[in-house]
Amino acid sequence: MSRVAGVVVTPVAFADPPLLNVVGVHEPFALRALVQVRTDDGLVGLGETYADDAHLARLGAVASAVVGLDVYDLNGLRRIVIDVLGNGRGAAFGGMLAVQDPADVVLSPFEVALLDIQGKELGRPVADLLGGVVRPEVPFSAYLFYKWVAHPGRAGDSWGEALDSDGIVAQARRMVDEYGFTAIKLKGGVFAPEQEIEAVKALAAAFPEHSLRIDPNGAWTPSTSVRVAKSLEGLIEYLEDPTPGIGGMAEVARQTELPLATNMCVIAFDHLKPAVLADAVQVVLSDHHYWGGLRRSRLLAGICETFGMGLSMHSNSHLGVSLAAMTHLAAATPNLTYACDTHYPWKTEDLIKPGVLDFVGGSVRVPSGPGLGVELDEDAVGRLHEQYLSCGIRGRDDTSYLRRFDPSFSPNTARW
Amino acid sequence: MSRVAGVVVTPVAFADPPLLNVVGVHEPFALRALVQVRTDDGLVGLGETYADDAHLARLGAVASAVVGLDVYDLNGLRRIVIDVLGNGRGAAFGGMLAVQDPADVVLSPFEVALLDIQGKELGRPVADLLGGVVRPEVPFSAYLFYKWVAHPGRAGDSWGEALDSDGIVAQARRMVDEYGFTAIKLKGGVFAPEQEIEAVKALAAAFPEHSLRIDPNGAWTPSTSVRVAKSLEGLIEYLEDPTPGIGGMAEVARQTELPLATNMCVIAFDHLKPAVLADAVQVVLSDHHYWGGLRRSRLLAGICETFGMGLSMHSNSHLGVSLAAMTHLAAATPNLTYACDTHYPWKTEDLIKPGVLDFVGGSVRVPSGPGLGVELDEDAVGRLHEQYLSCGIRGRDDTSYLRRFDPSFSPNTARW
Repeated sequence: MSRVAGVVVTPVAFADPPLLNVVGVHEPFALRALVQVRTDDGLVGLGETYADDAHLARLGAVASAVVGLDVYDLNGLRRIVIDVLGNGRGAAFGGMLAVQDPADVVLSPFEVALLDIQGKELGRPVADLLGGVVRPEVPFSAYLFYKWVAHPGRAGDSWGEALDSDGIVAQARRMVDEYGFTAIKLKGGVFAPEQEIEAVKALAAAFPEHSLRIDPNGAWTPSTSVRVAKSLEGLIEYLEDPTPGIGGMAEVARQTELPLATNMCVIAFDHLKPAVLADAVQVVLSDHHYWGGLRRSRLLAGICETFGMGLSMHSNSHLGVSLAAMTHLAAATPNLTYACDTHYPWKTEDLIKPGVLDFVGGSVRVPSGPGLGVELDEDAVGRLHEQYLSCGIRGRDDTSYLRRFDPSFSPNTARW
Repeated sequence: MSRVAGVVVTPVAFADPPLLNVVGVHEPFALRALVQVRTDDGLVGLGETYADDAHLARLGAVASAVVGLDVYDLNGLRRIVIDVLGNGRGAAFGGMLAVQDPADVVLSPFEVALLDIQGKELGRPVADLLGGVVRPEVPFSAYLFYKWVAHPGRAGDSWGEALDSDGIVAQARRMVDEYGFTAIKLKGGVFAPEQEIEAVKALAAAFPEHSLRIDPNGAWTPSTSVRVAKSLEGLIEYLEDPTPGIGGMAEVARQTELPLATNMCVIAFDHLKPAVLADAVQVVLSDHHYWGGLRRSRLLAGICETFGMGLSMHSNSHLGVSLAAMTHLAAATPNLTYACDTHYPWKTEDLIKPGVLDFVGGSVRVPSGPGLGVELDEDAVGRLHEQYLSCGIRGRDDTSYLRRFDPSFSPNTARW
């Protein structure tokens, strides 16, 4: 019976392009924490999560408390996390993620690591521990962003500028050519809705066979959302977070046939009942990083199936351990029928050895090796940790970063 | 990688006392089906379920279709069951259980058997596969019944008659003395509510420290239910199925502080959304036999936690394979905070070797052996199968059996 002998939490930073969104622009480096759980019989399980200072402190506290835990004791893990954190602290994870209770967010990388260990012990992929593979190849979507040509004062990236529909279509073309994506998501909330509607229409004209989505991260009022929805009905498969809040989403949902999706107003289990009672969302974007890991993401999937909601998958800027976990989860979740989001094409550095998570036809084949099926590149881990130490960023703050260049900027939430 | 090599479904019958309920009286024998799943490397996993003819036919069809299945492929198992059964047939399992879609009921014994095999391969109890033990000793409740002294024309059992409050209190006394139960449930719906209220009050007087419940199986109208609830507030921990249907339960729930529990109006995943929208029930009685096995019962548990409902556990007449599965599930389900129902004290025969599932202080210690941790008594299986063949009963029908002795009887559903 394997027990946890120790945990190492390593914050890392990796280069990130200047991607625009409703609250600002991505900083030059994105942060992640690598969680390595080692057992008394020498196995190592991997998890990946956020890495702002407050989260690192919580991870560290739990890391000490889980020593001695049986690797199958996921109930015990959750109890430890709850006990260590106490109640009702609230937590924000940069970007637009904030929750009342950080327990599920802190639980996640430990749970993934324990499942990785279980799989390694068994000689089976993590997907088998989640009920077995229903789709060996997991479709992801091209994740388009309005972006600057370069971070101010720094060299540009290979993607160039995208500040209008032509730039977005060109970006999509390259993503589709290189990765084979059959679904396309545009991150909106950057420009006035008319410009973003025009971009979606340009995408629809250029990619008539692709499934399309737009996500303005709550940039619009309910009435603007209804107007945009009307103009995009038939063009997109769902409209993601047009307006903030369960009440606003419900108001929009009553006035459009377009399914509304969310990773903003339903991001924790205590949001589900009010959302169901209000009939506010038709598709929930799962994300094992804040839904408490893979088993609790399967619970979310079961809730969506039971309450007649669709299921898709959300992404933040991430590395390969997360992509592996996302792929196993999606592979083993029958009702996850939409292509999953991923920021993976935007990263140029990783902490795992290459070759296991390649995109073919827009999909990632579920790794067949034991556990998550990915292997750390120890040199890369060291390099990205050095980069964390030197980059000076200690928490995601897209708004402050944009204000350095445009002091008058304020987030576009419900602006239009 | 173990794969299913073959499945044997064995119907068995075991002696059952003349226990009274809202629809009639238990017949002299209760039926169960033992499901034995054998793998290509010689492991055998066990499941136990209903055994009416229609269910046996469905089990047989699935048994043939699962040959070759990887024992971890629970998603594949569910897909096979759905494919084999087709949609929308409807199914009744005797007593008061009827569902629109039999898939989860048919899935259950196969899923339990595959988990038993996984545990045997791993050398771990099934509870570990469900997230780990949170309570090593699982509390059950004394399950009291009004009963005849004997089946007409047959020898009596050791329990004697219980047709009034004195009989019920005496029955409870023996159950508590022999098993140590700290919770007591009275099966009602047999006599007029006043008599059953009196019995509960007599129990409360005799067992002031015990948690009490009554379950009239929907024998009352909503207004009677409210009246009974008012008279039992403070005396019982929940009121189970006072009246039939989600609408009726919601009407009662609005008029009492007493939590309403159900294993009648919410017995399948498609009942949950209407029940939540109507705020009809405060406690759901899980039962892995119709909630699709142990993993899907954990899904039900997660739904109850998420939507603010309590969780208890239902029982039908059952044998030791079921008791083992119930115990592992309850041991690994944090929010299953009520003592579970069980008919186990009423049976005098079993198909497993004794010694593993003894009641101490009203609780069963979760078996520590691999898998379910119980072993078949092959002689007993043969004997109970012979009894099935000779007993002539091929489906549970308490109503017809009672009418043999009282042709005027009609079920008491919503009678008072």
